[in-house]
Amino acid sequence: MTIQLKDSFLAPRQTQNIQVTIPSALKRCEETGRLEAFKLNWTPDSDKFMPHIFWDSDVAKVMEGMAYVANQPGGEEIRKRLDELVRLVVSAQQPDGYLNTHFTVTEQDKRWTNLYNWHELYCAGHLTEAAVAHYEATGDRLFLDAMCRYVDYIWSVFGEGGREGYPGHEEIELALCKLYKVTGNPMHLKLAKLFIDRRGTTPNYFVEQEHVDPSGLPNRQAHIPVREQTEAVGHAVRAVYLYSGMADIAALTGDKTLLDACKRLFDSITQHRMAITGGIGSSQIGEAFANDEDLPNDRTYNESCASIGLVLFASRMLAATGEEKYADAIERCIFNGALSGISLAGDTYFYVNRLETNASTYVYGHGAQTRQPWYSCSCCPTNYCRFLPQLGNFCYRATADMLAIDIPVAAAIDTDNYAVDITSGYPYEGCFNVTFRKGGKFTLAVRIPSWCEGIMKLPEGGEIVNGYWRATREWKAGERLAFSIEMIVRRVVCRAPADSGKVALVRGPLVYCVELPADADFAPYELTVPAVASFSLVPVDGLQKGTLGIRFNAIRRIPSKQLYSNAAPMTELRTVTAIPYALWQNRGSVQMNVFLNDGR
Amino acid sequence: MTIQLKDSFLAPRQTQNIQVTIPSALKRCEETGRLEAFKLNWTPDSDKFMPHIFWDSDVAKVMEGMAYVANQPGGEEIRKRLDELVRLVVSAQQPDGYLNTHFTVTEQDKRWTNLYNWHELYCAGHLTEAAVAHYEATGDRLFLDAMCRYVDYIWSVFGEGGREGYPGHEEIELALCKLYKVTGNPMHLKLAKLFIDRRGTTPNYFVEQEHVDPSGLPNRQAHIPVREQTEAVGHAVRAVYLYSGMADIAALTGDKTLLDACKRLFDSITQHRMAITGGIGSSQIGEAFANDEDLPNDRTYNESCASIGLVLFASRMLAATGEEKYADAIERCIFNGALSGISLAGDTYFYVNRLETNASTYVYGHGAQTRQPWYSCSCCPTNYCRFLPQLGNFCYRATADMLAIDIPVAAAIDTDNYAVDITSGYPYEGCFNVTFRKGGKFTLAVRIPSWCEGIMKLPEGGEIVNGYWRATREWKAGERLAFSIEMIVRRVVCRAPADSGKVALVRGPLVYCVELPADADFAPYELTVPAVASFSLVPVDGLQKGTLGIRFNAIRRIPSKQLYSNAAPMTELRTVTAIPYALWQNRGSVQMNVFLNDGR
Repeated sequence: MTIQLKDSFLAPRQTQNIQVTIPSALKRCEETGRLEAFKLNWTPDSDKFMPHIFWDSDVAKVMEGMAYVANQPGGEEIRKRLDELVRLVVSAQQPDGYLNTHFTVTEQDKRWTNLYNWHELYCAGHLTEAAVAHYEATGDRLFLDAMCRYVDYIWSVFGEGGREGYPGHEEIELALCKLYKVTGNPMHLKLAKLFIDRRGTTPNYFVEQEHVDPSGLPNRQAHIPVREQTEAVGHAVRAVYLYSGMADIAALTGDKTLLDACKRLFDSITQHRMAITGGIGSSQIGEAFANDEDLPNDRTYNESCASIGLVLFASRMLAATGEEKYADAIERCIFNGALSGISLAGDTYFYVNRLETNASTYVYGHGAQTRQPWYSCSCCPTNYCRFLPQLGNFCYRATADMLAIDIPVAAAIDTDNYAVDITSGYPYEGCFNVTFRKGGKFTLAVRIPSWCEGIMKLPEGGEIVNGYWRATREWKAGERLAFSIEMIVRRVVCRAPADSGKVALVRGPLVYCVELPADADFAPYELTVPAVASFSLVPVDGLQKGTLGIRFNAIRRIPSKQLYSNAAPMTELRTVTAIPYALWQNRGSVQMNVFLNDGR
Repeated sequence: MTIQLKDSFLAPRQTQNIQVTIPSALKRCEETGRLEAFKLNWTPDSDKFMPHIFWDSDVAKVMEGMAYVANQPGGEEIRKRLDELVRLVVSAQQPDGYLNTHFTVTEQDKRWTNLYNWHELYCAGHLTEAAVAHYEATGDRLFLDAMCRYVDYIWSVFGEGGREGYPGHEEIELALCKLYKVTGNPMHLKLAKLFIDRRGTTPNYFVEQEHVDPSGLPNRQAHIPVREQTEAVGHAVRAVYLYSGMADIAALTGDKTLLDACKRLFDSITQHRMAITGGIGSSQIGEAFANDEDLPNDRTYNESCASIGLVLFASRMLAATGEEKYADAIERCIFNGALSGISLAGDTYFYVNRLETNASTYVYGHGAQTRQPWYSCSCCPTNYCRFLPQLGNFCYRATADMLAIDIPVAAAIDTDNYAVDITSGYPYEGCFNVTFRKGGKFTLAVRIPSWCEGIMKLPEGGEIVNGYWRATREWKAGERLAFSIEMIVRRVVCRAPADSGKVALVRGPLVYCVELPADADFAPYELTVPAVASFSLVPVDGLQKGTLGIRFNAIRRIPSKQLYSNAAPMTELRTVTAIPYALWQNRGSVQMNVFLNDGR
């Protein structure tokens, strides 16, 4: 089964990933010592960088991405390099199965002593995901077998009858489920389930064994058992990785209570704690979820990895339920807050994805104002290496008996059973055709996006289930179905206090923003969208081919000369062009706003 | 010379301070071990609390406040208790003059080893201020002499030819200037000047001696020499304490370069980095100044001590220059962001003074949503003990040859040379009379607040200098002068991005806010002040006697049911009453906004 994207929005990112993103991430891994670290030649006296506790995960994520593209056109070199890396990584494995560059060469006696803050199980999870991807891409079991040995060892420490610990940075849960699907080894699933079941139970492992202050437990989603959790709390990346693992185990074991918890947590995120762009974790303190509707614009965090993680979680929920709202979240992230984290050139990244920047914007932690080529904590850059190749799987779910079109970007889909071409101008146009290149009997399911509020032209003969148009029959080769979603500029309001009196322009799945050069004579936050605004679509140069902007006449409130002024603000008209948020800051340093004052 | 306030806004706070604030702070100091600490009986095995590195400062600030009220009606008990405390504190002094409860009983070898983070010189400063106040109130030299011995010892460590260090938390600079004014000992002034002159010079003491990362220097105002500093940066309380010390030294030595630096730093604060309430330090990270115009409403910090500190700085600048803008800042703080930190009952406190709270407000650090009776870091509660008794001195400057009326609250002022009564309904009314109870020849200077934009009725025969009406002549007993400042409800706009499209209601010196019960059926942030609004003044019950609210018809934008919605917001009319910000949250837990959407 292959899904080949052919659209103008996502497909170029995938090409760029092979040509630029993966090679540049590899280069950075090399320059910073992350690769060298697997040679285990660091000593306190050496002039090498000390392997950091999460370095292994960075390499693993790049390798996972390499595996996904190894068999694609242009992937030959990557495949070769990947095989070398596999040998390098496996060479670092210890006789007992342990594989961690930090704790093997630095403090060997500290293994597993700080699950709360250190990242051993997290790194093991990413290595496992990479190993599964490598095996699936190549059929070579070397890496996979090594990771099975590592998991055997982890089981000997944390398995049944072992230490009651679980990760402070979740990730291995979903990785073990992936591993189980390949190996069929029940222990792999059992270990994942143990990590899930133990989390947050009393007596609390982190408090009892690692003397963590109980106030720190919510940041690790370890304050109460996961099945009792109703609100998405704490470190956002950890949270959605955990929830993804929970959804995996629910699917693999039929655990309805666990699935219900996933549903509640998903709703907590998307109904109360998610930016309009799909960014999550609005608190800069702890990279964490804040309160319901606490969604600041300039001071928000919205880590790139968190939005990617939300896609991972939502895609599992979509698979489990078939409900449109999960595809809605996937689409929101992909077309906005996830892709905003990487430049169109494919080699610089945001760690923090603000919804507003201006000359006053406060920079904290990893919140650089411009995309950076790398970060000391480089989880986001390396996440793109593996996220971009999977975009097709987030747009289409193709099995032998069903093709679900979740996001109708142009694509060619080939399975043993059928082959389908989608011709489409999505996300800029709402019309698309589904042409059966090779016929067959299966269910076709086409999403009716909630944002179009039902205004979508559908072929005859289907039924509406869970927000999808569905029809099961024998499709003939050459047959063509036409769909059309209404695409208007929507003035979207948000009930969060930070957006009171504000409005965002949205068209189709794309959230728009106004960006102006950093040295422009005014800033986007000064703008009001008039009560009666006329929007026109215009091509935008300097971004992706085919990019459409929204041009409109805005009212500018001219800021007072004094910080505080008794005088009513003067206004003037300005014509501005909003661009897709995912493409912002690809034309130099800018000021940007998603939400503008609402003149209504 | 005495200044007795008789108004309805400030005077009741002073009475409350004697009856409630000081006694309750003393009780807390006792309960938490802060008093016991001076017995130096803590040992690693004792069941007592370990004296914290800044505990001494808390006790000192309460003592300073006690000294200010010791001779006032109702102050007899406090005077007695103060004398006991003086003996207790002095008993902790070491043979070499050192006086610090933490480092005397805990890590004696750590004295002066971490000026950057620990608070030894800060504590010494507050003890010095308390000693000066005690001496001035009582004539008793016991405490003063002890502190002179302590300063002798500090000089032996940090004086000329000694270690080149200076405080990580500034305060002792201004304290030494106070001490010098009482003792006339040139060393006291010289030491203060050394601490000022060394700060931020190269090689940097903190970096060289204490291995502080250079990125941490701005938080301590130690990144460049103080005379070169142009922007108010770093920890806001530290900053304004430093600037106050700089202004003192400039005044005492005639150092114009230093005064110029103070002027620049004051303008940096008030023109770019100050909330409309006089709150400063808008960054929750580091309790610090952020960028120019970076003034969030719900996520701002605005520590109570910082606003108090700005009053201290501005009052020195006012004394040095006579310029109205400094009185403007004093007034802004006192009537808004400084007094908001203490409840009307006088026994609970805000550490963080937000300009907006609602159900979503994120709580961080000391940012409790409701006023607390005490904090683990209780600098703010104890600061009120000494701040409130000085309010008269911030409203009136009375010397033998000049009476400056900076803030015309009702008061009786008595000097050897003259006696004056001010009858006034300020801050709620703009008319006030100045009656000479005892005549004399002197200059009368009356401030023309910048916010009235010159609309003020003045008596004949004066001249306008630096924003003050001035007249120098022989004033006759019984003579009366009438003044009247226009008091209208002003719609004040702010050029900060966070306030784009927003407006605050201000009347006279009072910034107003809308507060609604936490469980109200709507929140203040949903409100818009209509383009044409009619404001009426109404008495408000349950706050201070005489409190006037501003009633107006607001437009409420009803939040969408969904987090994001395509539908235009529904609106409805609501009548609301804004109250003075300084008095907010004295009627239970509430939601509050200073800035509302501007319907113009």
